[in-house]
Amino acid sequence: MYVILVYDMDKRRVGKMLKLCRQYLNWIQNSVFEGEITEVKLKELLAYAKLIMDEKTDSLIIFKSRQEGWLEKEVIGKEKNELDNLI
Amino acid sequence: MYVILVYDMDKRRVGKMLKLCRQYLNWIQNSVFEGEITEVKLKELLAYAKLIMDEKTDSLIIFKSRQEGWLEKEVIGKEKNELDNLI
Repeated sequence: MYVILVYDMDKRRVGKMLKLCRQYLNWIQNSVFEGEITEVKLKELLAYAKLIMDEKTDSLIIFKSRQEGWLEKEVIGKEKNELDNLI
Repeated sequence: MYVILVYDMDKRRVGKMLKLCRQYLNWIQNSVFEGEITEVKLKELLAYAKLIMDEKTDSLIIFKSRQEGWLEKEVIGKEKNELDNLI
């Protein structure tokens, strides 16, 4: 499945989260990742993320799209990480 | 169509972009919006966004899903803006 992951975290924990998410997904913008991932790997990523986060104050949101083609991506301005369009 | 909008902008312009995006979509997290929007309204939003942005340094990404049900949302930690799950 194709996912978009965004997080909003305390500055002290952002470095660790960035490092973690980079192992599973593609960094595309400040606190935003995207990529193809299996259900098992996503569960693994989220388990590690929970160890890093303070779930009372930090926020992580995952948007899942079962089909890669169901999502269309448009970039305006600087593409921070040159990734092909999804289609 | 259902969209997710994320931006990564110079601090001096973030306030204006936040104000603009709030008129069209739901704020869910730092620099992240989601919501149902028509093609016409999305064009309008992007035209105004381009007036605010410095396209050489700022970045705005839109993920479009033609069907609302094609996107599944999972929130971990603090839901910054209480919005129903998409399904």
